[in-house]
Amino acid sequence: MSNTIGNKLKLTIFGQSHAPCVGAVIEGLPAGMAIDTDRVRAFMARRAPGGELSTARREADEIRIVAGLNEAGRTCGAPLCAVIENADARPGDYEALRDLPRPGHADYTAWVKFGGRNDVRGGGQFSGRLTAPLCFAGALCLQFLEEQGVHIAARIASVADVDDAPAGIPDEALLRYLSASPFPTLDAAAGEAMRRRIAAARDAGDSVGGVLEVFALGVPAGLGDPMFDGMENALAAAAFGIPGVRGVEFGEGFRAARMRGSEHNDAFRVSDGRVVTATDRHGGILGGITSGMPIVMRLALKPTPSIALEQDTVSLSGMENARLRVEGRHDPCIAPRAVPCAEAVMALVLADKILQGR
Amino acid sequence: MSNTIGNKLKLTIFGQSHAPCVGAVIEGLPAGMAIDTDRVRAFMARRAPGGELSTARREADEIRIVAGLNEAGRTCGAPLCAVIENADARPGDYEALRDLPRPGHADYTAWVKFGGRNDVRGGGQFSGRLTAPLCFAGALCLQFLEEQGVHIAARIASVADVDDAPAGIPDEALLRYLSASPFPTLDAAAGEAMRRRIAAARDAGDSVGGVLEVFALGVPAGLGDPMFDGMENALAAAAFGIPGVRGVEFGEGFRAARMRGSEHNDAFRVSDGRVVTATDRHGGILGGITSGMPIVMRLALKPTPSIALEQDTVSLSGMENARLRVEGRHDPCIAPRAVPCAEAVMALVLADKILQGR
Amino acid sequence: MSNTIGNKLKLTIFGQSHAPCVGAVIEGLPAGMAIDTDRVRAFMARRAPGGELSTARREADEIRIVAGLNEAGRTCGAPLCAVIENADARPGDYEALRDLPRPGHADYTAWVKFGGRNDVRGGGQFSGRLTAPLCFAGALCLQFLEEQGVHIAARIASVADVDDAPAGIPDEALLRYLSASPFPTLDAAAGEAMRRRIAAARDAGDSVGGVLEVFALGVPAGLGDPMFDGMENALAAAAFGIPGVRGVEFGEGFRAARMRGSEHNDAFRVSDGRVVTATDRHGGILGGITSGMPIVMRLALKPTPSIALEQDTVSLSGMENARLRVEGRHDPCIAPRAVPCAEAVMALVLADKILQGR
Amino acid sequence: MSNTIGNKLKLTIFGQSHAPCVGAVIEGLPAGMAIDTDRVRAFMARRAPGGELSTARREADEIRIVAGLNEAGRTCGAPLCAVIENADARPGDYEALRDLPRPGHADYTAWVKFGGRNDVRGGGQFSGRLTAPLCFAGALCLQFLEEQGVHIAARIASVADVDDAPAGIPDEALLRYLSASPFPTLDAAAGEAMRRRIAAARDAGDSVGGVLEVFALGVPAGLGDPMFDGMENALAAAAFGIPGVRGVEFGEGFRAARMRGSEHNDAFRVSDGRVVTATDRHGGILGGITSGMPIVMRLALKPTPSIALEQDTVSLSGMENARLRVEGRHDPCIAPRAVPCAEAVMALVLADKILQGR
Repeated sequence: MSNTIGNKLKLTIFGQSHAPCVGAVIEGLPAGMAIDTDRVRAFMARRAPGGELSTARREADEIRIVAGLNEAGRTCGAPLCAVIENADARPGDYEALRDLPRPGHADYTAWVKFGGRNDVRGGGQFSGRLTAPLCFAGALCLQFLEEQGVHIAARIASVADVDDAPAGIPDEALLRYLSASPFPTLDAAAGEAMRRRIAAARDAGDSVGGVLEVFALGVPAGLGDPMFDGMENALAAAAFGIPGVRGVEFGEGFRAARMRGSEHNDAFRVSDGRVVTATDRHGGILGGITSGMPIVMRLALKPTPSIALEQDTVSLSGMENARLRVEGRHDPCIAPRAVPCAEAVMALVLADKILQGR
Repeated sequence: MSNTIGNKLKLTIFGQSHAPCVGAVIEGLPAGMAIDTDRVRAFMARRAPGGELSTARREADEIRIVAGLNEAGRTCGAPLCAVIENADARPGDYEALRDLPRPGHADYTAWVKFGGRNDVRGGGQFSGRLTAPLCFAGALCLQFLEEQGVHIAARIASVADVDDAPAGIPDEALLRYLSASPFPTLDAAAGEAMRRRIAAARDAGDSVGGVLEVFALGVPAGLGDPMFDGMENALAAAAFGIPGVRGVEFGEGFRAARMRGSEHNDAFRVSDGRVVTATDRHGGILGGITSGMPIVMRLALKPTPSIALEQDTVSLSGMENARLRVEGRHDPCIAPRAVPCAEAVMALVLADKILQGR
Repeated sequence: MSNTIGNKLKLTIFGQSHAPCVGAVIEGLPAGMAIDTDRVRAFMARRAPGGELSTARREADEIRIVAGLNEAGRTCGAPLCAVIENADARPGDYEALRDLPRPGHADYTAWVKFGGRNDVRGGGQFSGRLTAPLCFAGALCLQFLEEQGVHIAARIASVADVDDAPAGIPDEALLRYLSASPFPTLDAAAGEAMRRRIAAARDAGDSVGGVLEVFALGVPAGLGDPMFDGMENALAAAAFGIPGVRGVEFGEGFRAARMRGSEHNDAFRVSDGRVVTATDRHGGILGGITSGMPIVMRLALKPTPSIALEQDTVSLSGMENARLRVEGRHDPCIAPRAVPCAEAVMALVLADKILQGR
Repeated sequence: MSNTIGNKLKLTIFGQSHAPCVGAVIEGLPAGMAIDTDRVRAFMARRAPGGELSTARREADEIRIVAGLNEAGRTCGAPLCAVIENADARPGDYEALRDLPRPGHADYTAWVKFGGRNDVRGGGQFSGRLTAPLCFAGALCLQFLEEQGVHIAARIASVADVDDAPAGIPDEALLRYLSASPFPTLDAAAGEAMRRRIAAARDAGDSVGGVLEVFALGVPAGLGDPMFDGMENALAAAAFGIPGVRGVEFGEGFRAARMRGSEHNDAFRVSDGRVVTATDRHGGILGGITSGMPIVMRLALKPTPSIALEQDTVSLSGMENARLRVEGRHDPCIAPRAVPCAEAVMALVLADKILQGR
């Protein structure tokens, strides 16, 4: 079903932008986990709106765990359900939203699919607001993974035409650095240039896209299955659940298509009695199965479709051409706030695969 | 499970490169279909080895349908099972294969996962040979889709550094042209240059990668579901089942990350009483749901990991560094033979979503 | 996963007896449904505690729908989430509960499974309290089914040694009669005798079991699939989700095992231009597929394991024999309050199969 | 999907009575298993037709494993596919079969479901013939389970009005005795009486039903999950895949509904430092989770619907009443040949749950 993902660890997300709540049901966490709520809150705060480059909507994102804990506040083996109130939901002119689909949004396709009964308020179930419960679930998985020695962090690899510096093979220090950074890039100057691109787009009533790169270290070799249930299949299926993702690649990704085999193959080497590869162009996955090397995934995010400029659209009631100006303030670039979403997706899939075992 | 995909239309693939057979079980095809075996054969022939740019292995790919047809030879509602004998499987020095994992292959990761019990002959279950049953299933779905007015074709968008011409919004004529072409590109000169790159790599004992682009026309609006069960999620999860795929993107894909919202948004227009978009940068999918515009998916294929050049690897038995020269002849570029595989993946997912309904 | 069921209509139940809430996420309801809250409440009230023959726990069962409705209060295609506060949860002596597993309950098996971390308060996730969200989901499905012309009702077929009268082929009038009855039996005298058995058991500090029989009328022929996805498979898999169910049978069920084929086969007849059967010993299902005749399912419910009599058990901490007296008041017979649960299970599975289509 | 079952161990069955083949794909067996083909053959022979009380159809049931083994003949982690040729399939008058549905069979419901395109030859995909691949898969699981210390055997608990003696708590010796018996009952005289009932039914052109009881010993405590994924749910969902099953019960089953709690609860006791129950009325499952005590499941089998007596049916082409005499010889009682099927179902589910882990 559309809002459920995972196998041994299963996540179901519910809610719409202006429903009373958004939330998540998480089945399969090991019993006995003590949830570090400070870290959960800190992780979710990275996704929350705020700052000059993001939307003006304010949400406290107070999590209420309504099921799944025992009397000692530890996971008890039952599904964990967390509910987040939509405090700042506001009424509005819904009829206009129903009639004039916003370009680049799901308004039109949802209108077709649900026969005009979909929730149009703030994008309904297609809203970025639903990444709040995604990040909550991701925070729990990150905690579980840390106990397994797995660490995850993402960076903003590019915004518009500005690229961050190449990463090389990521290590723990890099991941700690990225996790602590409010706008995670390797090259501070590149980060500064990216911010300028975002500000310029905002000032022009426009938006820009970007690329995120997620790293996972300490993943044991042998996770994932051949063919349709490999790590890439599972990661991609989850990553396209983040609104705005248009492409997913692993290791060298699309760059691999321009390389020769002799350039792209990673040599196996023995190091400290373990098999490693000298380079990590394969991004930690061979044949759908982890190699023990760092996992590297990149996500392409489209420019925010909500822009202040007037656009061509149609009137669905009149079935005729129309013009539309999208009201309200919106993130001029999704990439910064999507960083924890990308980490959450990686965490969910790795936790699921670890719980499935080899 | 790893070898099964789909929901209402479910495909299970079995076999290994040197097992007695490869094959497929397909559940969910409508009862009453008369299978056009000539077209199935023609479609599968495009994947089969042959030609100066591909491996020397010869497989007749004779399909035996052992279940799923009634006495009139039509689908009967029961799972359809097709078996393809591995005629040209040859014995070899399996111990060496077990000991020295080939760089870029799943040999090492499978060794970890299956504790050294995996079938190493010819890559076992990770072999490109398993795309034969994938294409068989795809051929049946293509026939079903044609009855629904849906057409699918793919082209080779790039090989190494050679790009085909831009496609614009694809139409029926383009798809017919591509389907009839043995090396489908829009620009014949680009196709010729690609072939030269492949030949040069082969002569150098090396290989090259490429990008495939798949188009689907006539897809009704409203297919696919929000969040984790959207068209992109399902297509990507299936596409990463093709050996060698390292990236999947839709519409503008990674290029979208470099665009502004005003450049990337597709304006809605009314045309002949229907809602269309003036451009198709969204690749026919918005919010995981089809818009009725052509679907556009691109797959990045890595260079064939089997190369004739000597490479660094390890001895798993001795846990020490070693050298390896991969014997035998191999496709110096996967892209040409992967064209029907990409079409098959698109066909499987679209047939499944159509059978699921809106 | 354990708390999720269904395919096209998917239900996930969460909560524990003494967690802050119990609730349900329902994916796949058609968009545009206006929920008849009065009928939902009336249906759920049949399950709620109350009356002299049931537990003293008082729960208002106020439903809060936190997601899945549009601004007009209709289903919008997004997952519907309903939350029910556990108003009457009380603290207690949990250490004793952890140490002395109650005979006939899941205390011991949950202790093994969850390593002693399970929620023991009031039976935790194994509590009958979780049938509240099950009935909520069932009430929505019943409303959907009614719009499809499908009607469902259950009766108490037996309690202890008292059997209700045989039902014959059920009709609409019978179903209306049962739905309106607080203690649904065909034979009022039998119902009276059952109540006496329950009261006698209660007075003896003991409990009794019973059998429920669920009928569904107006189910179209052709639903369900062969072998592992037939109607019986799906209904049984759901029915065993009701705490205390020990057996499930269809049509003549176990009685069929004592019959001859000539007695058991139902003759096909043409009636009003439709194919019917003269009798309904097959309970509306042949080969896993509905025949269009009334569906008949019976569920065996064990006697409530919580009894006031002192029982033998073990101390898990000391790994030694012990004695236990279960405190509190409990339903001396599950059957009466399980009537809507049985109807809910039938409704969930039929709605799912109808949404899946033939 | 209808022909697939299981989670970590997944079985897909294909074939029809008169298709070229029946067979199975089994995903998830551990890599490295050496298949004991003699025992597989012996197990399957118990299901095969033969003997004076069964059908005259002769099938050698030669298994060909076409995928899933490595060069040493051991499982390799890839899906295992086995194909069984339908040697004795015979052409016949299919038009009559399409027109006159046999009472008690799936002919009519399949005609509705598949629009008359289903395979009618010998019952098509509804044929008992498909229990051959079920038993093959079961035989592999039994071998896996034996390595885990789990043993399974079934007995014929009743035929028509003849009951076998009560079993008490089953032990290893009982299971060995049953496994070695061609007509497994505890009481030889009861077995003899059952055979007489079957012979009498056969001589009268009629058939009889029966009940099977399956035992599993050595199952670790803690397998299975709460609510919808408990052991009963999974076992029942699989058991109803055997043609002719009309009821499934565990432990005391329907008898529990007539008992008091004080009679039905099993006291916990410490024995040899382990927790056991003094009796096994719960049939080894509490709250969906195994207790470590023997699992006890009973299946009600209806009398074979194919009888020699003339019966009332309808002509689907003329939509009018008709008479039908079912030709050919058939098993007058399914129970004896269903014994290994019941064991196979138990083995499949237990192997799946063990592979899923606690």
